[in-house]
Amino acid sequence: MSNLAYLFKPKNIAVIGASSHPGKIGNIILKNLQEAKFAGDIYPVNPKAKNILNIPVYQSIDQLPNNIDLAVITIPRDLVVDALESLGKKGLKAAIVISAGFKEVGGAGYHLEERLIEIAKKYNIALLGPNCLGLINTHANLNATFAAGIPNKGNISFFSQSGALCVAILDWTLGTHIGFSKFISLGNKAALDETDMISYLGDDPETKVILGYIENVCSGQKFVQAATKVTKKKPVLIIKSGRTSAGAKAASSHTGAIAGSDQAYTAAFEKSGIIRVLEVENLFNLALAFSSQNLPKGPNLTIITNSGGPGIMAADICEQSCLQMTRLSNQTIEKLKATLPGYASLYNPIDIIGDADTTRYIETIDIIKDDPNTHAILVLLTPTSAIAPQITTLAKEIVNISKSLTKPIFCVFMGKYHVKEAQKILLNHDIPCYPFPEPAIYALETMFKYWEWTQKQPELIPAYPRNLELAAKVIEESKARNQKEIVEFQALQVLDAYNLPHPQTKLARSSQQAMQIAQEIGFPVVLKIASPNISHKTDVKGVIVNLNTPEEVKDAFVEITTRAQRRRPDAYIIGCLVQKMAPKGCKEVIVGFKRDEQFGPLLMFGLGGIYVEVLKDISFGLAPLSREEAKRMIKQIKSYLLLKGFRGEPPINFKALEDILLAMSQLSLDFTEIYEAEFNPVLVNQEQALVADVRFTIA
Amino acid sequence: MSNLAYLFKPKNIAVIGASSHPGKIGNIILKNLQEAKFAGDIYPVNPKAKNILNIPVYQSIDQLPNNIDLAVITIPRDLVVDALESLGKKGLKAAIVISAGFKEVGGAGYHLEERLIEIAKKYNIALLGPNCLGLINTHANLNATFAAGIPNKGNISFFSQSGALCVAILDWTLGTHIGFSKFISLGNKAALDETDMISYLGDDPETKVILGYIENVCSGQKFVQAATKVTKKKPVLIIKSGRTSAGAKAASSHTGAIAGSDQAYTAAFEKSGIIRVLEVENLFNLALAFSSQNLPKGPNLTIITNSGGPGIMAADICEQSCLQMTRLSNQTIEKLKATLPGYASLYNPIDIIGDADTTRYIETIDIIKDDPNTHAILVLLTPTSAIAPQITTLAKEIVNISKSLTKPIFCVFMGKYHVKEAQKILLNHDIPCYPFPEPAIYALETMFKYWEWTQKQPELIPAYPRNLELAAKVIEESKARNQKEIVEFQALQVLDAYNLPHPQTKLARSSQQAMQIAQEIGFPVVLKIASPNISHKTDVKGVIVNLNTPEEVKDAFVEITTRAQRRRPDAYIIGCLVQKMAPKGCKEVIVGFKRDEQFGPLLMFGLGGIYVEVLKDISFGLAPLSREEAKRMIKQIKSYLLLKGFRGEPPINFKALEDILLAMSQLSLDFTEIYEAEFNPVLVNQEQALVADVRFTIA
Repeated sequence: MSNLAYLFKPKNIAVIGASSHPGKIGNIILKNLQEAKFAGDIYPVNPKAKNILNIPVYQSIDQLPNNIDLAVITIPRDLVVDALESLGKKGLKAAIVISAGFKEVGGAGYHLEERLIEIAKKYNIALLGPNCLGLINTHANLNATFAAGIPNKGNISFFSQSGALCVAILDWTLGTHIGFSKFISLGNKAALDETDMISYLGDDPETKVILGYIENVCSGQKFVQAATKVTKKKPVLIIKSGRTSAGAKAASSHTGAIAGSDQAYTAAFEKSGIIRVLEVENLFNLALAFSSQNLPKGPNLTIITNSGGPGIMAADICEQSCLQMTRLSNQTIEKLKATLPGYASLYNPIDIIGDADTTRYIETIDIIKDDPNTHAILVLLTPTSAIAPQITTLAKEIVNISKSLTKPIFCVFMGKYHVKEAQKILLNHDIPCYPFPEPAIYALETMFKYWEWTQKQPELIPAYPRNLELAAKVIEESKARNQKEIVEFQALQVLDAYNLPHPQTKLARSSQQAMQIAQEIGFPVVLKIASPNISHKTDVKGVIVNLNTPEEVKDAFVEITTRAQRRRPDAYIIGCLVQKMAPKGCKEVIVGFKRDEQFGPLLMFGLGGIYVEVLKDISFGLAPLSREEAKRMIKQIKSYLLLKGFRGEPPINFKALEDILLAMSQLSLDFTEIYEAEFNPVLVNQEQALVADVRFTIA
Repeated sequence: MSNLAYLFKPKNIAVIGASSHPGKIGNIILKNLQEAKFAGDIYPVNPKAKNILNIPVYQSIDQLPNNIDLAVITIPRDLVVDALESLGKKGLKAAIVISAGFKEVGGAGYHLEERLIEIAKKYNIALLGPNCLGLINTHANLNATFAAGIPNKGNISFFSQSGALCVAILDWTLGTHIGFSKFISLGNKAALDETDMISYLGDDPETKVILGYIENVCSGQKFVQAATKVTKKKPVLIIKSGRTSAGAKAASSHTGAIAGSDQAYTAAFEKSGIIRVLEVENLFNLALAFSSQNLPKGPNLTIITNSGGPGIMAADICEQSCLQMTRLSNQTIEKLKATLPGYASLYNPIDIIGDADTTRYIETIDIIKDDPNTHAILVLLTPTSAIAPQITTLAKEIVNISKSLTKPIFCVFMGKYHVKEAQKILLNHDIPCYPFPEPAIYALETMFKYWEWTQKQPELIPAYPRNLELAAKVIEESKARNQKEIVEFQALQVLDAYNLPHPQTKLARSSQQAMQIAQEIGFPVVLKIASPNISHKTDVKGVIVNLNTPEEVKDAFVEITTRAQRRRPDAYIIGCLVQKMAPKGCKEVIVGFKRDEQFGPLLMFGLGGIYVEVLKDISFGLAPLSREEAKRMIKQIKSYLLLKGFRGEPPINFKALEDILLAMSQLSLDFTEIYEAEFNPVLVNQEQALVADVRFTIA
């Protein structure tokens, strides 16, 4: 989208459907452009008017000059396609289609939107919308929306799939200190979508923080790639709604968007370093913090307070976050002792007591700013009678001292009435100030986690070694036989192709052969039914474990095959797999993937049995996995301690388990015809990780 | 505290330490009393002044009339004790000691506070403080604080252990619609504490909602009893800080209060129906909701919205709460279809689309208010251009329609600028209105849970049948021997005394006897070391399971006793316990208690092994347990599904397990010398629950 820049910084703008009637969208847009003091030419187009808001009007698109930078289109739906075509012919660079009635209403609207997409492609037009509120760029004096009011200039950019949310947020920020750089209503995302915006804003020097609201992502893998690059440079905070089934249902009836699974979104955000936000209010608390303060370069928070209760609450919140309460250096404590009155509490939270005045606050901050263990400072204030008359003075002093700070400083001035003026001063000087401790600490925690992300080394994703031909052969054979699943005795060859260790296994077509094989590979063994038609072996009681003698093997072979034939007369029974019993004392884990509509292969990991099924103790990741990501997936489950060794047990061989996750990731990318896969169980102990059972579902 | 009423509704007030210097506490208090238009007599006491703020001054306490209702004392610490004594002699009913320097500074202050307590008892004075901000009763025109400003009259009462939080909250509510009834700073809680306040406010007709902030509870069991009664009548919402170790450390350095374990607080709040709140902001969001609207009589929430995005977000939040999205009745959907335009979404959330005006909103609310499935209504609004000019009209219409509603109605008007006026109208007419969906739904969820609490039948706590003498004998014997623990072979008798089933167990003093016993009770058996000095049997490898023959039993006896003697040469080895092996396929659970400093026996329950130790999947409850509470404790663990039967397994015998919890509860109350107890494991299956191992720690 090389023309994207014209959308944000046009030198001239045509308004197709400009209106002379106040209150009409085509009038509001023109007025908004004018009132924002857009410096370039504005060309209203209207067949009947001569002059609107003192701007000369063009009667038709044909009369417009060529090579216009941006057209804002707000004419009835059925006229939009032709208008865009005409504009395209005349060399238009970018368009905002405000008009509604497209994909969101279905039927004819859907087809008209398809036409729009075609035309945008044909003429290489950067197309925003349709069905959107428009776009604001405060740094270009551009307000191409029909919203009421324009936000302050700032360094926060926001894109939204919901026009209503744009309206609400504009309204919420009017008259506050929050300033925006770009403000974009995505509408139906016919052409330009969240990925384009993230990429553009990532390179935009006027944007320090990127915020977004989305209901779905248009192209998952492109999105992840683009976001991963941008988040290393600046924070991207996104609300993705439709998290729950009720929400997803509401979303699908809203835009008809199929959203994909929420786990996949969580995994995609995590992979690409996007900060997922759940509540609108938090989005702004975080934006405020990120846009104004440095990132904390570590987890240690030091709290300075003039009141015990709020100090305790803040310590509680800190302790439950990823942050921790700084252990102040001895030198710092000595300095505090020399400065503060005897009844102050010198340990974090530093309680400078209710009679503290501005001087005591500033002296304390001055000591803490040099404490080597402190990564972030929180100044907590209750408007006691001692400080109440000085709060604005204190705010100004904090602004002064903050200029020499490299650590982030946050204020929590509790209350409303007496602290109002001071809050304004702080906010106007880029010091976040909140009325309660919670949002301040939550913001600092998020900034710290983001700092950790920016410090991460880029992770290599090496191709996992494998014999592609062998695997392809097995899969092709299964497809040729119209199998929906590659069942175990075939799937074992795929495991071999990916060098995945599994217990020694051979196919026996008769009970005699089974006895022979058992003796070859050594007792005890397991017998499992082998049939291309039976994938859920336990449904036909097709597995008998712990067979210790040739006789037991023989009996088991007969029992299993007879029962399977009786229960599934339609199935072709090949015989039984004879498999060496896994070593004792193994842990059972599950490794699998399913293919997400938006993001492709979503890998999953968990401990076998109740951990996955009852406790839902599962971690997710998107292919391709790096080894770091495989490690993270393993560590992320709550039952991880069991793998690390519990009650004196040795830890499992983590590298072997990571290899299995990496192989699964590679496999999921190599063969898109495999729709779902599950290694269940994978048996892990101190030495090895063995794939004891496997199933591939073919799409 | 029969004089408590005088604290809140005095007919006259003496101010001991009234001052003529503006800005001094003794002056501010007098001014506050005056400005709040207190109707009774005010008697300033000051040895030097004749007249302060046009009120005649008494030069000494002696000169005061007798039987004064309330004295507010704000003189230097060292004079307070004598002043209170003199006032007591003259028949004082209630006192607020503002002066600080008592227990909170330790040393002499501690002793002075003890004296205050004595005097209050001696003269039956209702004593608030010391070291407090004072007290407000808006319904009695009483402002006996030195805080700046007085809140609006309302039906919310608030008590706080932190004076600073009182200041912050007063400041926060100044100039808002939030109104208070009583506002109480507890200070050091020398005499009156949270329990007294909850009881008083519970009976106070001017209080609809009780809020509190505490750092500790003074008398746990009294607190639970009082609160349980009050919460059936009106909601009690409390912030208890010091939840984490960092917070508790801060709290203890703040007031020197020992808080007891946070789990015990959670259990106590749950037992007594107190709503625990974690954040100050939530406290007010909830207070607003409870103080103005009816409780929802079920979980079904219906959302009416003019914008898709916010509707989806609200549905997400609803789905993740205890509430659920109403499935509207067919009749309701038909009515909506007949009323709303074709492009509206008739299913919950009902999206009446961005062009909705006041009429469409009201028509929709009018239909939903009669929907039989709906328990609560949420009206969501984005200030679109269609509704923006009518928002205040809509607010007034909602106020009108709400008068005929028995279901709660909440508004979320997103934004700030265009919705400000409407928000005010709604709030002034007792309709909660929030700028974002989250706090509205959280408040409704909390109200629903509280409604469930009010519907609960009172639970009987029957005495658990037991042989007290037998149990007492064993415990006395152990105490006589100075044992710190009652180890298994003795403890089994306590189990018998409480009719607690355990695997058949006999003491063998020799290997021969062990073989004999094993044959008597039947194989397989377990052997366990029996020694009064060895409580952690596994530390000396003192347990061997699954012994199947007399020979195995003999060998095991020798092995265990020899090893124990070698490893613990100091220990007196009696022999081994021979215990019948528990039936196969049992689940292992743990039942125990420890004695909390504030709340007494805190019972705990969880599944054995990693569930408790790694996953921390534990539930807590306070003795005495009702059967309902035992049920709740069992259900509350995440691994409950395992007990209910997983993968076709039958459920365990829940009644038998409940009985063990009830017996443990009874035992914990019967013998306060037992400091901690643990049945670990208790083996449960479909038929029974067996206590397989037991340990009692004696204090």
